[in-house]
Amino acid sequence: MANLGHGGNIKEISREKGIKYTDIIDFSSNINPLGMSNQVKKVIIDSMDDIEIYPDISYAELKRSISEYEGVNESYLILGNGAAEVLFNIVKALEPKKVLIPSPTFSEYKEAVECVNSEVELYNLKEEKFFCIDEDILKKITEEIDIIFICNPNNPTGVLTNKELLMKILTKSKESNIIVLIDESFMDFVEEDFSMINALSNFDNLIILKSLTKFFAIPGLRIGYSLCSSKDIVSEVYKITPAWNINAFADISTRASLKDKNYIKKTIQYMEKERAFLYNGLKEVKNLRVYKPSVNFIFFKCDFDIDLKSELLKYNILIRSCSNYDNLDKYYYRVAVKNRENNTKLINCLKSIFDKQK
Amino acid sequence: MANLGHGGNIKEISREKGIKYTDIIDFSSNINPLGMSNQVKKVIIDSMDDIEIYPDISYAELKRSISEYEGVNESYLILGNGAAEVLFNIVKALEPKKVLIPSPTFSEYKEAVECVNSEVELYNLKEEKFFCIDEDILKKITEEIDIIFICNPNNPTGVLTNKELLMKILTKSKESNIIVLIDESFMDFVEEDFSMINALSNFDNLIILKSLTKFFAIPGLRIGYSLCSSKDIVSEVYKITPAWNINAFADISTRASLKDKNYIKKTIQYMEKERAFLYNGLKEVKNLRVYKPSVNFIFFKCDFDIDLKSELLKYNILIRSCSNYDNLDKYYYRVAVKNRENNTKLINCLKSIFDKQK
Repeated sequence: MANLGHGGNIKEISREKGIKYTDIIDFSSNINPLGMSNQVKKVIIDSMDDIEIYPDISYAELKRSISEYEGVNESYLILGNGAAEVLFNIVKALEPKKVLIPSPTFSEYKEAVECVNSEVELYNLKEEKFFCIDEDILKKITEEIDIIFICNPNNPTGVLTNKELLMKILTKSKESNIIVLIDESFMDFVEEDFSMINALSNFDNLIILKSLTKFFAIPGLRIGYSLCSSKDIVSEVYKITPAWNINAFADISTRASLKDKNYIKKTIQYMEKERAFLYNGLKEVKNLRVYKPSVNFIFFKCDFDIDLKSELLKYNILIRSCSNYDNLDKYYYRVAVKNRENNTKLINCLKSIFDKQK
Repeated sequence: MANLGHGGNIKEISREKGIKYTDIIDFSSNINPLGMSNQVKKVIIDSMDDIEIYPDISYAELKRSISEYEGVNESYLILGNGAAEVLFNIVKALEPKKVLIPSPTFSEYKEAVECVNSEVELYNLKEEKFFCIDEDILKKITEEIDIIFICNPNNPTGVLTNKELLMKILTKSKESNIIVLIDESFMDFVEEDFSMINALSNFDNLIILKSLTKFFAIPGLRIGYSLCSSKDIVSEVYKITPAWNINAFADISTRASLKDKNYIKKTIQYMEKERAFLYNGLKEVKNLRVYKPSVNFIFFKCDFDIDLKSELLKYNILIRSCSNYDNLDKYYYRVAVKNRENNTKLINCLKSIFDKQK
């Protein structure tokens, strides 16, 4: 907990640097640059009195709404106070002895399994293979592994793993009773079909983890969930989940967001345009090797020995240094795609930082 | 999870009975009848944009605000998404083999320890002793107990345990390395000084659990915490607590509530008057044996064989049947103290229910 290396830590940074947090342009957290749906503001104001009552302990309407959005059976759902809570509760309920984690990836998987003193085997993604998961991961799937974590698209690299390989992983894992947890928290930003949701009913060893707070720009409200067809897993995880874990505003805002089809469409279109703009702009900056993005963030390597995070903070721009990821180092960074004005500012600031280094 | 026996379940009841949930007068959940502080509505509207950013991962301002309110060191604090989350995480972190729970009491202690397959020893509170914890509890404090749970004032009875006895329990427990968890979630409603907060620095085996949502009428927002002077316990619990577990609105609303001294004073005054009114009114209802209340709810026994919960639902009034508590039965009920209009309605409806039974 309180891992200060995460992105989105603008309040911590603002205290440290003496900058007002609202003055920081935050490229470190991967939030939809359109901001929340207007429907969310509206339902919060309209439902203000709902905070004086307990949330619906069964979350009946929320479950219906999410299951319709995902096209899955309601019984597959485990709701959480952010995807982080679901992740921690899955790990606490399943108590894996040993897990396999591709690396680099989202650090919370490792933090979660460390709670239950699980042994962690890293599957090292290679720079020369553009950090892709390869068929050789299948050799790592051995009987002593209890859970495999796959972030798809991967955070921080944005790399996608294709369905064919995932099917092979699922099939081999099922033979050895290994759970495959695929984190699709950024999948809603991906235009092509890479989601494994349709495999849920055939693979009771598959758990899909999702956060809605990135796509719908409501990270302050905390909402996440997992999907799994195994009744045993769902009931084991719920057994250790405290009552009323979703707050009333997360409940109503999620329902309002999922209904706002216009906002969803607009986000996809906006992201396509701005991602291309930022990607092309970053490619023009010397010293940077920019990975082709698939989602709402862009991963790059800087070939010059400079602390870009500190340099950009002088312009009140916060980016995510990837130096604290396993298998990465201080040369790697991740930036969110923001609006045109901010994306332009980032590109220009990076250019002028390198111009000064001449 | 989703224990439908809890109070405050008006959305579930409304679906079941086909009553609009806003039409139900909810005496089953123990929420401040004044409703939330006006400051809360104001800060939520003013801070709407804060939900687009991650909460402060350190919760620096929130921690400062709670530690000032409680008059304890910030390092004692563990924040939770409701007291329920803190409770579950304490149990998961400490993994007790055997616990001692006075009975009847809040059912979540038992649910939490069942997650870690702990053995539960109940200390049966006796009707003839008005459900008070007695000196004989000391005989139950033996080496094989790992945690003792004490709800003070107790839910659902409202019975207070005095400091002298609690000091004896703490002292004897400390000798055997037993943790004493005192749940003071309703203590802010108690006018006299029964809180054991001042004992925290001398007893590192004491954990005080608190919910703020009852007193400040924000159960939909989810905020709770525990206080403990043992650095080991605090760090063990935080290790298994997911990041960003407090949502942005719970964070700002709690700070605004704790600052609203006028609201706090008004609540105490209002509660004193309305509690006396409802208590006296219920005492006039035949067939009821009403326990003297200390807080914002009243516990009573009905000596007549009738399902008062169902009868009152015909008037859209929801009360808490205590039939699903260990060591209680269908003759016991708990009602929250509400405003004058609703309290009067409850008294009158009860009177007419019994009048019809002639």
